Amino acid sequence: MTEDRVSAALSPEAVLQQVRVVLVETSHPGNIGATARAMKNMGLRQLVLVRPKYFPHPDATALASGADDILEQARLADSLTDAVADCHFVIGTSARPRRGEWPCFDARAAALRVAGAVALGPCAVIFGRERTGLTNAELDHCHALMQIPSNPDYSSLNLAQAVQVVAYELRMAACGAPEPQQRQHPPAAAADMERFYEHLERVMLRSGFLDPANPRHLLSRLRRLFDRAAVDRNEVNILRGILAAVEQWAVRAKSNGGGDGQA
Amino acid sequence: MTEDRVSAALSPEAVLQQVRVVLVETSHPGNIGATARAMKNMGLRQLVLVRPKYFPHPDATALASGADDILEQARLADSLTDAVADCHFVIGTSARPRRGEWPCFDARAAALRVAGAVALGPCAVIFGRERTGLTNAELDHCHALMQIPSNPDYSSLNLAQAVQVVAYELRMAACGAPEPQQRQHPPAAAADMERFYEHLERVMLRSGFLDPANPRHLLSRLRRLFDRAAVDRNEVNILRGILAAVEQWAVRAKSNGGGDGQA
Repeated sequence: MTEDRVSAALSPEAVLQQVRVVLVETSHPGNIGATARAMKNMGLRQLVLVRPKYFPHPDATALASGADDILEQARLADSLTDAVADCHFVIGTSARPRRGEWPCFDARAAALRVAGAVALGPCAVIFGRERTGLTNAELDHCHALMQIPSNPDYSSLNLAQAVQVVAYELRMAACGAPEPQQRQHPPAAAADMERFYEHLERVMLRSGFLDPANPRHLLSRLRRLFDRAAVDRNEVNILRGILAAVEQWAVRAKSNGGGDGQA
Repeated sequence: MTEDRVSAALSPEAVLQQVRVVLVETSHPGNIGATARAMKNMGLRQLVLVRPKYFPHPDATALASGADDILEQARLADSLTDAVADCHFVIGTSARPRRGEWPCFDARAAALRVAGAVALGPCAVIFGRERTGLTNAELDHCHALMQIPSNPDYSSLNLAQAVQVVAYELRMAACGAPEPQQRQHPPAAAADMERFYEHLERVMLRSGFLDPANPRHLLSRLRRLFDRAAVDRNEVNILRGILAAVEQWAVRAKSNGGGDGQA
């Protein structure tokens, strides 16, 4: 049985709840709060803080902005070893390439791996210090490394922004299937569109816009336009209504005629 | 030789530089700074600020953290219309489903659309106010809406975090060699479409089709239709020509008036 087939049995929420986010020696408590919010926004719940510089702290609470529960449930750990002791798959974030034999993934591939792996037990994603990332010793606890694709000229994401991107990819991986397009009204049938095109042609001829000797090309262009619009039944009625109204307008104008150049 | 102009494939950097990020009425200048950083991290450069509450501001500079150049090059605009006048494809972020007919995409699909569309001209992604998002009038200027998949119980991302996720998806899309959209004629810019909509409204009012007391809903429906059609410059001229012709028709009919019920 492959990892992927087993994980198909877990709901997206269950998958996400098995993923642990670990922050190592975070300097700015605001980043911890913003991390909690980013996690909760994506359905993640497990936060472990390894020797945070300042925690708890008002900045963390302020930036958490409604994700206080994530902060309250956050576990404090003395070491990374302790933080991931029960995890079977640990991915570390690393902005720079590292000497060594780690499998390297971008955030998307990493998220897919994690989403598949949680069926076998807890997994963790590790984020290092704002300025210096993870030490070699800490990387030694990682089964693989992940990089967020970024501008090579300016690749250093804010810590909480990096968590947000990874959390988002985890949710996308956990959820899978794409959102189907939805429309409010059924599409217009071809016969309805034909009547519209006939009506439009009539108005274009009567108004003098269309040269009766050579109408085809312009009408064809307009057909392509309305095809792309995928006109629905409600809309074709609106369009027919406009055409009828302008025809009547010309009739009324003629009836009210007086040659003053106004209509 | 085919009729279609084959758009040369743009490099990822060139794709990203054609994408404009627009923030509308941002309350917290720190979010503007964090946005600039998130953009630069992903290779985006064009930032337009519509009526930011406080800008320039030390918080913006502080959070930009090395992306000062993005802030310095940021353009200030009085309106969203002004911010996107030269864009042919505009996607708005909307956390909540909206009544109406906008095509809706998740961030990934939206990014793929934008990455393909930049071959035809500038595109924009619009982010609204921190608390209230975008107004209905602002959404009316959007061809499509985008949502970031999130926890239904806690779906509100921090503004700069939302920008980060979208910027990341744009980079992923740009680097993934998106198929450039190809069209025979260049697309109509938003400003050209605005003139068309004004002209259409005038004809709809003068013909009596539109109730001047309540025009908004029908006009909005028609905007959605023409947005889906992705009208090109040649087509918008045809449409304007039709409108001008029917106006003249009514004028001539009036001049030739005689009350015989024909026009």
